[in-house]
Amino acid sequence: MSACTCEVCSCYKTYGVHDPRITQVDGTYYITYVAASKRTQRVGLVRTKDFRTVDEMPYVSEPDNKSATLFPKKIGGRYAMLERPSEGASIWISFSEDLVYWGQSTVVMTPRGGHWDCHRIGAACPPMEIQQGWLLIYYGEKSTSAGPLVRLGTAVLDRDDPSQVLARSNIPIISPREKYERIGDVGNVVFSCGAVMEDTDSVMLYYGASDSCICLGTCTLDGILEVCRKSQEGY
Amino acid sequence: MSACTCEVCSCYKTYGVHDPRITQVDGTYYITYVAASKRTQRVGLVRTKDFRTVDEMPYVSEPDNKSATLFPKKIGGRYAMLERPSEGASIWISFSEDLVYWGQSTVVMTPRGGHWDCHRIGAACPPMEIQQGWLLIYYGEKSTSAGPLVRLGTAVLDRDDPSQVLARSNIPIISPREKYERIGDVGNVVFSCGAVMEDTDSVMLYYGASDSCICLGTCTLDGILEVCRKSQEGY
Amino acid sequence: MSACTCEVCSCYKTYGVHDPRITQVDGTYYITYVAASKRTQRVGLVRTKDFRTVDEMPYVSEPDNKSATLFPKKIGGRYAMLERPSEGASIWISFSEDLVYWGQSTVVMTPRGGHWDCHRIGAACPPMEIQQGWLLIYYGEKSTSAGPLVRLGTAVLDRDDPSQVLARSNIPIISPREKYERIGDVGNVVFSCGAVMEDTDSVMLYYGASDSCICLGTCTLDGILEVCRKSQEGY
Amino acid sequence: MSACTCEVCSCYKTYGVHDPRITQVDGTYYITYVAASKRTQRVGLVRTKDFRTVDEMPYVSEPDNKSATLFPKKIGGRYAMLERPSEGASIWISFSEDLVYWGQSTVVMTPRGGHWDCHRIGAACPPMEIQQGWLLIYYGEKSTSAGPLVRLGTAVLDRDDPSQVLARSNIPIISPREKYERIGDVGNVVFSCGAVMEDTDSVMLYYGASDSCICLGTCTLDGILEVCRKSQEGY
Amino acid sequence: MSACTCEVCSCYKTYGVHDPRITQVDGTYYITYVAASKRTQRVGLVRTKDFRTVDEMPYVSEPDNKSATLFPKKIGGRYAMLERPSEGASIWISFSEDLVYWGQSTVVMTPRGGHWDCHRIGAACPPMEIQQGWLLIYYGEKSTSAGPLVRLGTAVLDRDDPSQVLARSNIPIISPREKYERIGDVGNVVFSCGAVMEDTDSVMLYYGASDSCICLGTCTLDGILEVCRKSQEGY
Amino acid sequence: MSACTCEVCSCYKTYGVHDPRITQVDGTYYITYVAASKRTQRVGLVRTKDFRTVDEMPYVSEPDNKSATLFPKKIGGRYAMLERPSEGASIWISFSEDLVYWGQSTVVMTPRGGHWDCHRIGAACPPMEIQQGWLLIYYGEKSTSAGPLVRLGTAVLDRDDPSQVLARSNIPIISPREKYERIGDVGNVVFSCGAVMEDTDSVMLYYGASDSCICLGTCTLDGILEVCRKSQEGY
Repeated sequence: MSACTCEVCSCYKTYGVHDPRITQVDGTYYITYVAASKRTQRVGLVRTKDFRTVDEMPYVSEPDNKSATLFPKKIGGRYAMLERPSEGASIWISFSEDLVYWGQSTVVMTPRGGHWDCHRIGAACPPMEIQQGWLLIYYGEKSTSAGPLVRLGTAVLDRDDPSQVLARSNIPIISPREKYERIGDVGNVVFSCGAVMEDTDSVMLYYGASDSCICLGTCTLDGILEVCRKSQEGY
Repeated sequence: MSACTCEVCSCYKTYGVHDPRITQVDGTYYITYVAASKRTQRVGLVRTKDFRTVDEMPYVSEPDNKSATLFPKKIGGRYAMLERPSEGASIWISFSEDLVYWGQSTVVMTPRGGHWDCHRIGAACPPMEIQQGWLLIYYGEKSTSAGPLVRLGTAVLDRDDPSQVLARSNIPIISPREKYERIGDVGNVVFSCGAVMEDTDSVMLYYGASDSCICLGTCTLDGILEVCRKSQEGY
Repeated sequence: MSACTCEVCSCYKTYGVHDPRITQVDGTYYITYVAASKRTQRVGLVRTKDFRTVDEMPYVSEPDNKSATLFPKKIGGRYAMLERPSEGASIWISFSEDLVYWGQSTVVMTPRGGHWDCHRIGAACPPMEIQQGWLLIYYGEKSTSAGPLVRLGTAVLDRDDPSQVLARSNIPIISPREKYERIGDVGNVVFSCGAVMEDTDSVMLYYGASDSCICLGTCTLDGILEVCRKSQEGY
Repeated sequence: MSACTCEVCSCYKTYGVHDPRITQVDGTYYITYVAASKRTQRVGLVRTKDFRTVDEMPYVSEPDNKSATLFPKKIGGRYAMLERPSEGASIWISFSEDLVYWGQSTVVMTPRGGHWDCHRIGAACPPMEIQQGWLLIYYGEKSTSAGPLVRLGTAVLDRDDPSQVLARSNIPIISPREKYERIGDVGNVVFSCGAVMEDTDSVMLYYGASDSCICLGTCTLDGILEVCRKSQEGY
Repeated sequence: MSACTCEVCSCYKTYGVHDPRITQVDGTYYITYVAASKRTQRVGLVRTKDFRTVDEMPYVSEPDNKSATLFPKKIGGRYAMLERPSEGASIWISFSEDLVYWGQSTVVMTPRGGHWDCHRIGAACPPMEIQQGWLLIYYGEKSTSAGPLVRLGTAVLDRDDPSQVLARSNIPIISPREKYERIGDVGNVVFSCGAVMEDTDSVMLYYGASDSCICLGTCTLDGILEVCRKSQEGY
Repeated sequence: MSACTCEVCSCYKTYGVHDPRITQVDGTYYITYVAASKRTQRVGLVRTKDFRTVDEMPYVSEPDNKSATLFPKKIGGRYAMLERPSEGASIWISFSEDLVYWGQSTVVMTPRGGHWDCHRIGAACPPMEIQQGWLLIYYGEKSTSAGPLVRLGTAVLDRDDPSQVLARSNIPIISPREKYERIGDVGNVVFSCGAVMEDTDSVMLYYGASDSCICLGTCTLDGILEVCRKSQEGY
């Protein structure tokens, strides 16, 4: 009866679903995903407590939206979600009090001409809370004459107003270099939907390489922040 | 402090605002409009009680959205808005409890191949309540080899679930025919943002012709519904 | 059971049929037409003796073909048909012994850069036999910054090998000039699917103007040939 | 004097010929090929009995056609040819009584959204007769953000009416995996113009990899049919 | 033997020449024009003293350049030329000591988003010397959904450094309004290649309307400057 | 004060500079480079005697020009420069008496349909003087369905009139074959901005591979000329 289960809506998944991002908020796991069809792409949402039974919720975007992920806690009493509406190729943020109605959308970051993230960007992993605010690992795309080069970089967002970018890496933290990152069904792509911060200084980044295999990269949080810090200083 | 007045937001109007639709809900006038900039188009909202002082509200859409209009009353306790997200060229509906957070978006009508509204459609006037449900006057665009031909037609939406289309006119109710509709800065266009139903059987349609002058057309409600009725019957 | 009536085929007319050309061959009237669908355009064929009962025949082209017309007599024992395959924008000729199987396709005329027929051409009327060979009235399209300008011109094809062009007019014989030719649903277009040669020196050309009305133009055959003759001489 | 040798025709090969498919019919070898020029691509045909002297025949298609191959026997008394007209990106079939005049064209298979063959398909090898009908090995193209991914799959066509598809593999039978299939002048492509069925249960598939080398793959007919069978059952 | 007369060069005029601008410098008339061919458009130059014998000079631009016009006197000892290189859609200036070798190119004016001259601009008439500097009448194009709307406006350039724009009209000085300006082979276009300042306060503007007729408009210099002045003041 | 240092000009390098070509003329080293910005690409020029202090000169092209290189001596008393204006995808030559004003531009070589250099060409290394004239190593691009394939070939230009091509290689002298040439940030690319002729018969070619590493290839001048010679003879 609700919009999310009507016949019209189910037709938004005829080409399948992909790019899930899992965020735990108040003990419940929420999974945003891209529903793909001939018509368009839009962002869907499900929730689960045990990964056995899953509860479908209404779509959280209109058409032509993707790369969405929830923040792991409410900000100012509201749920917050990063997303990439339409062809603007930028990261946006929207807010909600109930995960159903969304609003006060504003832009967070746009592509930077002449940089590694010059043609298209989007959130990769759900934001992780750190001392400095929110650590965001995002993907950046550079269109080369041989096709897109997709890499991962980071930004630090303000804890209370995550539409404010405190720092942003001028270079990627991971680029396709290994054979399995260069070659595959969709070559020259490293892409991630999730990372784990095991303790205060260790980041485990799960990423897909060339759309053909799944990899694990590790680094220290300090290492990542160092890249952001140097970018601020103009290196 | 809120997203709607921050510097980032004001930059969405650098190319001006256009296509306002005025809807009175519970004694307040709400005006949806298109904010245009180099970057994109998105839907803004203001409210007024006297057309002297105007109160700016947060944007009600993300980028690449236009042709939005509120319904003149809440439906199922929620505000409802027709809109046209992105390049899908279809009319959608979204709901809100507070005019700030929006959700449960679903498609209402799509272009019909081979018809007068085959390439692009959008709400023209705010929906008007009639005995049969909601009367929607909408524009339809047909791309011809000499450019688009924009005309106005009608649909009747269900009173309680306006995502359900009860009737839809197979022919337009007004087409460019007169010299001032054919010729102008943007020829072969009739477009409207508002109509007035004076009494139970008289519709006054204010429309722009060729982006160069403003016109008034009148017809009876029965005449409009007759077109819808015949379309149902396959004429 | 035959290909022309199977379900797959009927779906090529979902957007209707248009641009019929009627040719009488050996006492039977054959009508080529464009079958239009979301998928593509292709050429269909029907025949009739009395315009009351009509006999559908198999499609005479594959997809992306239009502007086809039969010659009013067999040439070298074979049926001949002018057509415009695909995006080549040129007039081609194909031959058949039975109106079902077609072959030996070859190009007849291509657009001429810098001329009135520089971007797209196609047969307008079925070829008419004259003393000099076959008189072809064809349309030529020039793409201007304000949209296409579609006009009608003539060529004379060799009687025995109509892929040979004996003469071709450097200027159109009719251009949009009158108000009803300039202005309409698709402005700046004159287009024809048929002409009648009443006696040896009078051509009656039925043509559509601006996709909004139907007109009759008359001229003498000598007048038309004079245009071709002067074109040959470099006027 | 015939269309196939005229000057106009020879200009269709100025960029060379490619993708030959050899079919033996009634003791004669027929080779269909793509003639490429600046203008367009169209399908040519030659025949030979000994691969020493070759006889050129008229072109068997109009412009913008490719990936054509004859069936190794007449079907219902007529020659049959698979082909890919124009931008429709689908496999079609046409029939002929004399290899010169072709007709009764109808579509056989179209791309399937969301599958491995979602953007473009075409016959790869000449159809091979098997107990169940005609075994067709065809190529399917998926457009990825890094360029097309071209793979080979199979279908079984009805013996008497090969426009009817009895089975079609939901997964490819060969995909670029090896280094020489991934990397080359045109990477991520496996493409074939011919396969040999040595005995009743062994298929030898000759294929090009990355447009840079030629490979031989072998499999059993049962293995191929098993893929089709499972696809029917929804695996 | 020189580049301007070699065979390669003459092929740049196969589609004819158009848009001549005549400038008298030191007693000689120089005519810049656009040479059009299938390949490209580039700027040619001829000179004459009596309009009877004409002297061809080398091309003054590389390919993809148009809308060029000389200044009527040398500036800082050098010839100066306005032009519109490539797809930038902007007005540029170049300098020369001998009309053969050109350099120190710099941009003068670019399109202004949201204005009447938002999509493409170029010099219309040769600059005219006035008390305030150089009066430039230029064309501006706005792309509407029904095609381009081409209008004429003005700017005042600095006398000694004409790359400096002292004033620029926020509204056009002439727009298509009359029937013969709205309707024609290329409708909604007013375009000029020359104006005459008869005495100190009268400008006669010769312009083409809809690519179908030639018109004469008159205004006072004060009237034109008033438009510029008001634009400066933000009207 | 001069055009090359004004604020407008510096904005042409906001995306950096690339593809420098160094040519020594009369004891001074001149470096042409591509200045890249959001707006366009154009050719800049600097000079140095010691590679410690560098002198910026005015831009030597208008927008949309790249792949420029000076000849190492004056030709007929004038500086000469190869370049690639705009989207023509061809190599042009311009002349200058002072390196500031340029003119008498003419085309030197265009892409050859059906060859390895069919879609785009440009000078790679500065021309090197040899007994037969000028040896030019240039890049050629072939657009494949998997992206561009960029290779290097050679031509010999006439010593006194370098717009005359005396010989041109039908095959490239180096193609991506090695793993580091095939795979990288921009795969399947070999590109050069400079070569050194050590003595009369040894060419050292420095080239970038896949935009990811720099390589050195060596060959004999005789070997290169042999390729050109055979191309002349039709191999």
